[in-house]
Formats: sequence, C-alpha cells, structure tokens
Amino acid sequence: MEIERKFLIKELPDLSKYDYVDIEQGYLCTHPVVRIRKKNNKYILTYKGSGLMAREEIEAELTKEAYEHLREKIDGHAITKRRYLIPFEPYTIELDVFEGHKKGLNMAEVEFPSVEEANSFVPPEWFGEDVTNDKNYHNSNMI
Amino acid sequence: MEIERKFLIKELPDLSKYDYVDIEQGYLCTHPVVRIRKKNNKYILTYKGSGLMAREEIEAELTKEAYEHLREKIDGHAITKRRYLIPFEPYTIELDVFEGHKKGLNMAEVEFPSVEEANSFVPPEWFGEDVTNDKNYHNSNMI
Repeated sequence: MEIERKFLIKELPDLSKYDYVDIEQGYLCTHPVVRIRKKNNKYILTYKGSGLMAREEIEAELTKEAYEHLREKIDGHAITKRRYLIPFEPYTIELDVFEGHKKGLNMAEVEFPSVEEANSFVPPEWFGEDVTNDKNYHNSNMI
Repeated sequence: MEIERKFLIKELPDLSKYDYVDIEQGYLCTHPVVRIRKKNNKYILTYKGSGLMAREEIEAELTKEAYEHLREKIDGHAITKRRYLIPFEPYTIELDVFEGHKKGLNMAEVEFPSVEEANSFVPPEWFGEDVTNDKNYHNSNMI
C-alpha cells in the first residue's frame, strides 16, 4: 500500500544540486492501472488498484525487449518526465518535471509511512495546490 | 513461487463427474509472461518470472472492461480451454482440455508444496509424457 500526497508547484527551486532520473512510462490499461515504465536502465511493470491517497501497488521486472514490445501497445501518449529527488527531512520529495506533450507541468509527490503523517505534512513554501484527490493529476489521466 | 509438473494425457478418463471452469487467456508479452485470463466471471492479470518447474508468479484483479480492453492487445491467438479439477490425494490434478486453435491437445498440471514432493510424484496410469521441462508446452508458446 502506497500512501502519498501530490502537489502542483508554484515556483521551481534551484534544481542543479539534486539527483534525478529520466522516466518514460505508458499505460496498457488505466482502470485499474497497468503501467510500463523505463527508469534509467530499469524496466518495470506496475499494477495499481483503485483508491487515491492509498492504493495497492504491485511491481514486476521487465526486460528491455519486453518493455519495447509492450510500448507498442500503450493507450494514448507515453509520458516523459525528469524526476528530481529532493531531501525534505524525514521525507523525500519526488519532483516531476514533465517533458513531451505535458511540458510545462511540474508536480511533486511525497510518500508517507502512515495516513496520519500524510495528513499532518506541512509542505515547503514553493509547493502550490494540493491535488492528491484530483484524478486529473493521475499520470494515467494525462495520456 | 509455483512448483508444478506438466504431463500430456494418454487417454482421457470419464470426466462427467468432475468440476470444471472455462478459461480464456491471452499474452501481452511472453518473456516474461504478462497474461490476461478470464475464468468464469473472474478477470486476472498474471506476471510470471523466468524458470520452468518453479517460477515467480504475481496475480492482480482486472475488471471485465479492463480485460476486454487488454484482450485487443494480445499477441497471436487467445487460448481457450476447459479445466477439470480432479482430486488425486493429496493433490489436485488440473486437466486442461483445449478448444479453439489447439483443439485435440489435453494436458495435466499438478502443483506441489515443495520440489521434493514434485520429484517423487507418481502419476496416474492415464498420464502420458512428462513435459514439465519442455517449453513448447508453455501456454505462452502455443499462441
């Protein structure tokens, strides 16, 4: 079970000092989510059950060839984004800077060990609107 | 981890007294296996890691709509078969009687709690060749 909150970004911080990974992903199905993702040199199949803040999530490894085979079967557009990992003790902010057809969108996710911690989280100044409960900001609705 | 042995069938027993389920399945990918299956009114997504007798297996629930959406994306043919469940103490024989493009093929699988039990299994008289290690009899190679 993954417990997370999502926020739009008011103003990007200086990103030059943070690590990042380049991500490409696509959806074979959106309800429930069956997603393929390329993250650097790793290829992953993900299933996500229903739910917003807390969702069942299963991951399994794919080969590059399997990814490319399934890449031909995705619905709509692939999503490409650069994900920055920003320490924000005791959490890590995952800041997604979108490329491709969603270029201009910036969104942050923070994962929590419990619903209580998620609810009491105080976001940094540069975060904007909380979109945790807005399905439009599910990546699966952005294809 | 699933531990099982597979056999061809020399001669079908009288099947009239056994329970069965009708199965339709297809493959989005075969290496690794990403399979969709309809089993009566249940729709399941399955991932299988590599390996023959023992393979990692992950299952997740699909809706009918998700199944039908993914059904459009399968490789090759869908596989249809009637699966009989035949008690063979302390095991259950799963006997698959294939329909569709594989009509005429009959194959049995038995699942075991350990590799030791799998190796010491004595099959009933009506079983034929042991094809556990023959990849041609993976359903994913029959599409």
